[in-house]
Amino acid sequence: MKALKVNGDRLWDSLMEMAKIGATEKGGCRRLALTDLDKQGRELYIKWATEAGCTVKVDQIGNIMATRPGEDPDLAPVGTGSHLDTQPSGGKFDGVFGVLSGLEVVRRMNDLGIKTRHPIEISVWTNEEGSRFAPAMMGSGVVSGRFTLQEILDKTDVDGIRLGDELERIGFAGDTPVTGRNYHAFFETHIEQGPYLEAENKQIGVVTGGQGQRWYDVVISGRESHAGTTPMHLRKDALIAASQLVLKVEEIAKAHKPGCGTVGFMQVSPNSRNTIPGQISFSIDLRHPEDDQLTAMDADLQAAVEELAVSSGSDINLKQIWYYAPIPFASECISAVRSSAEALGYSHMDIIAGAGHDACYVSDFAPTSMIFTPCLDGISHNEIESTTKEECEAGCSVLLNAMLVMAGEVKAEETSATEETLSA
Amino acid sequence: MKALKVNGDRLWDSLMEMAKIGATEKGGCRRLALTDLDKQGRELYIKWATEAGCTVKVDQIGNIMATRPGEDPDLAPVGTGSHLDTQPSGGKFDGVFGVLSGLEVVRRMNDLGIKTRHPIEISVWTNEEGSRFAPAMMGSGVVSGRFTLQEILDKTDVDGIRLGDELERIGFAGDTPVTGRNYHAFFETHIEQGPYLEAENKQIGVVTGGQGQRWYDVVISGRESHAGTTPMHLRKDALIAASQLVLKVEEIAKAHKPGCGTVGFMQVSPNSRNTIPGQISFSIDLRHPEDDQLTAMDADLQAAVEELAVSSGSDINLKQIWYYAPIPFASECISAVRSSAEALGYSHMDIIAGAGHDACYVSDFAPTSMIFTPCLDGISHNEIESTTKEECEAGCSVLLNAMLVMAGEVKAEETSATEETLSA
Repeated sequence: MKALKVNGDRLWDSLMEMAKIGATEKGGCRRLALTDLDKQGRELYIKWATEAGCTVKVDQIGNIMATRPGEDPDLAPVGTGSHLDTQPSGGKFDGVFGVLSGLEVVRRMNDLGIKTRHPIEISVWTNEEGSRFAPAMMGSGVVSGRFTLQEILDKTDVDGIRLGDELERIGFAGDTPVTGRNYHAFFETHIEQGPYLEAENKQIGVVTGGQGQRWYDVVISGRESHAGTTPMHLRKDALIAASQLVLKVEEIAKAHKPGCGTVGFMQVSPNSRNTIPGQISFSIDLRHPEDDQLTAMDADLQAAVEELAVSSGSDINLKQIWYYAPIPFASECISAVRSSAEALGYSHMDIIAGAGHDACYVSDFAPTSMIFTPCLDGISHNEIESTTKEECEAGCSVLLNAMLVMAGEVKAEETSATEETLSA
Repeated sequence: MKALKVNGDRLWDSLMEMAKIGATEKGGCRRLALTDLDKQGRELYIKWATEAGCTVKVDQIGNIMATRPGEDPDLAPVGTGSHLDTQPSGGKFDGVFGVLSGLEVVRRMNDLGIKTRHPIEISVWTNEEGSRFAPAMMGSGVVSGRFTLQEILDKTDVDGIRLGDELERIGFAGDTPVTGRNYHAFFETHIEQGPYLEAENKQIGVVTGGQGQRWYDVVISGRESHAGTTPMHLRKDALIAASQLVLKVEEIAKAHKPGCGTVGFMQVSPNSRNTIPGQISFSIDLRHPEDDQLTAMDADLQAAVEELAVSSGSDINLKQIWYYAPIPFASECISAVRSSAEALGYSHMDIIAGAGHDACYVSDFAPTSMIFTPCLDGISHNEIESTTKEECEAGCSVLLNAMLVMAGEVKAEETSATEETLSA
C-alpha cells in the first residue's frame, strides 16, 4: 500500500498560527466554546479550508463541515476532524491537532493531485470540552442522536447565557440539518492525553475503541464525635471506612487489567481537626474497555461496599450515576490505521481511548477509528501540554493513508495522473 | 468520711434557668464569649453567688471569683469552677454544670451551716470554648501564665472586634490582677463529653489527668492526571497514599492503648471526579495520657511516613504544629474525688480527660482534679447534649465532699453546730 507523508512543517505552522488565538502566558490556549475567540478560530479554519478548495457548511449546532469533492458525488464521505475549543487552561494540541490534520490531508492531496472516489470531509465539532457549557462532546453528540438539538441549544453557561443565543451571536447557527449525517468511514487524530505511548516508546496508537465507564456517588455516614474523648474501639469514623474503600477501588481496578479505578472527589464533614469525621461524600470512576469486565468491577465494588458496611458499622450509600458502555471501533477502520502505520514504518501499538472523544459518538452511526500520538509525560488539559512536529507529522501521515484506503484513490489511468507523482 | 448530698432539684433548676439565656430551638444554648448573652449569664450568676453570701471579684481577663469565707482568712482557697460560654450550637451543660455545681456546693454548705478552714472559691473562666475568640481556655490560660494578658486582650473575633474592648463593653474588665492566684486545691466538675462512663455504666469519672496531644499538618503531593487515560501502574495518586496514612494513624493509635489518633480534616486537590488527585492536605491528631507513649506514637508516625514516601513515590511533608504534654492531676485531689464517690456509694472509674479543660491549666499552679459525669451517647458540643438531674446531683455531691476534705471542715465543738445537722 501507499506510504505517503504529509508536510509536517506546514501542519506545525498551522498549529502554531491557530494557537495564537487565545494564547496564554504559559504557552497554552484558552479558547472556550462559542466565545469571540472560538469565532476567530473557526473563521481562520474556514479561510484555510476554503483556500484548500473545500466547500464549507455549518449545521444547526454549529459543527463546520469542509468537503473536498470525490469522483462519485453519491458516495458518503470519508470523514475526519475534532474540535477547536479548549479547556480554560488548555494546551495547543488537544482537538486542534485533529482538525488541522484533516486540513493537512486535504492540502497534501492537493499537492499530489490525488483524487478519491469518496468525498473527504473535515469536521469541527462544537464544544467538545464541555467546559463552558456541559456536557462535553455536544456537536458530535447531537449528530449521533445522543442528545436532541433543542436540549443542547437550551443549555446555559454559568452566567446564564444560552448556547443557542451564543451560536447566533458568533454567526455559527447554520442551516444544515443535524440529522441524516453519514460517513463511509471516520478517523480522528488526537494526542493520547495519557502516558502509554511514551512509556512503550511507540509513535502511533491504533485506537481500537473507547472504554466503558461507570460513575458512582458514595456517601458514608459514621458518627461525628470528639477526637480526644472517643476511644478508638467506640468510634464510627467515616474517613476510616472511606479510606478503606478508596484502597479497595484501586485493588479492584488492578485486578481487572487494564481497568482504571479512581476516587477524584472527596468531601469530609464536618472537616474539623479535632472532630471524628461523621460523613464522607466521594466519587468513584471505574473504566474498562470490555463490558463484561466492567460489569465484574461493578460487582466487586458492590460486594466491597456490603462487606465494609458490616465491618465498619457505617451506613454506606453507593449510587451509580452514569453508565457508558465500551465503544468498539470498526475493524476495517482499525486495520486501515494499523496498516498505514506499518507501511510508513512507524512503531505502533493498539490502544484504547481512555477519555471521551467526538469519534466515540460518531462511531454510533459510522465505521470509526482514531489515531493517537504521544504527548509529553502524558499531560493534557494543561497549558504545558506538549508534543513535537515529528510526532504530529507521523500521526497526520497515518491519517492521510488510512483515509486514502477508505476513500478509494482514483487510479492514474482513470485520471491521467501518473502513479509516480503520488508517492512521497 | 462524710457522705453529704447536694440538693439535686435546686441544681437542676439553676441549670435550666441559666439555659434560658441564649436558648436555641433544639434545646441547646448559644452564649458566645463576651456577647450580650454572656453578660446576662454572668450577671445572673453573680446575683446567685451574692445571694449565697459570696464576695465577688472580677479579674483583668474577666474571670469571676465568688468567695465563701473560710475560718482562716490566711489560707489559700479551695477552688472549683468552669465556664459559662458555649459553643455556637452548644448544649446546656458543658461548662455551666461545673460553675453551678460550685454554686450548689456553697448553697448546700449554707443549708447545713458548714464552716471550712479554707475559703471556698468558685471561678467562671472567660472564654473556655475558643469559638468566638481563639484559642480556647483563655481565662485559665492567662492566670496560669500560658498566655500573657496583653496578647489575649488583643485577640479579635472574625469581625475584627477586640477581646479587650468587648470585656469593657459588657462591664467585665475587672481590676483583680491575673497574677499571684493560688489554690489549696482545685476541682472541676464536667460532663464527660465522651462515651466511657456510659459504656462502663459508671456514675462518676475520677479524672487522673489530661492526655498529651501532638497535632500535625500533612501534605502529600502525587501527580495530577486524567482518570481515564492514566494506567494504574503509572499513577501517583495522592489520595491512595493519604488513605494508607489515615489507616496507619488508626493502627498506631490502636497499638498504643488508650491512645487516640484522628484525621479530622482533609482537602483533596483538584477534587474533580475524573482527575487523579495530585495533592492532599490533612491533619493528624495523636493523643495519649503518657508522654513516653505519645513519643512512641510520634516515632511510629514518622516511620510510617518515610516508608510510605518510598512505597508511593509521592512527596510527603509531615509537620508537627502543636505539642501539649500530658497533665497529671494531683494525687491528693484524685484521692479526695475517689473516696468521696466511694463514701456516697456511686459506681466510679478512673478516667483521663480527653479534651482540654480549665482545670488542665489550673493544674499548672495548684493541686487539681476533675469529676466527670456521664452524658447521653457521649455527645457534647451539640444542641442535643443531654444528662439527667440524678447524674448532675451525683457529680455535684462528689464535689461537695471532695472540697470539704481539702477545705477542712471546722468541727461542731469548734463552731457550736452539731455533727448530726451536717449529714444528708
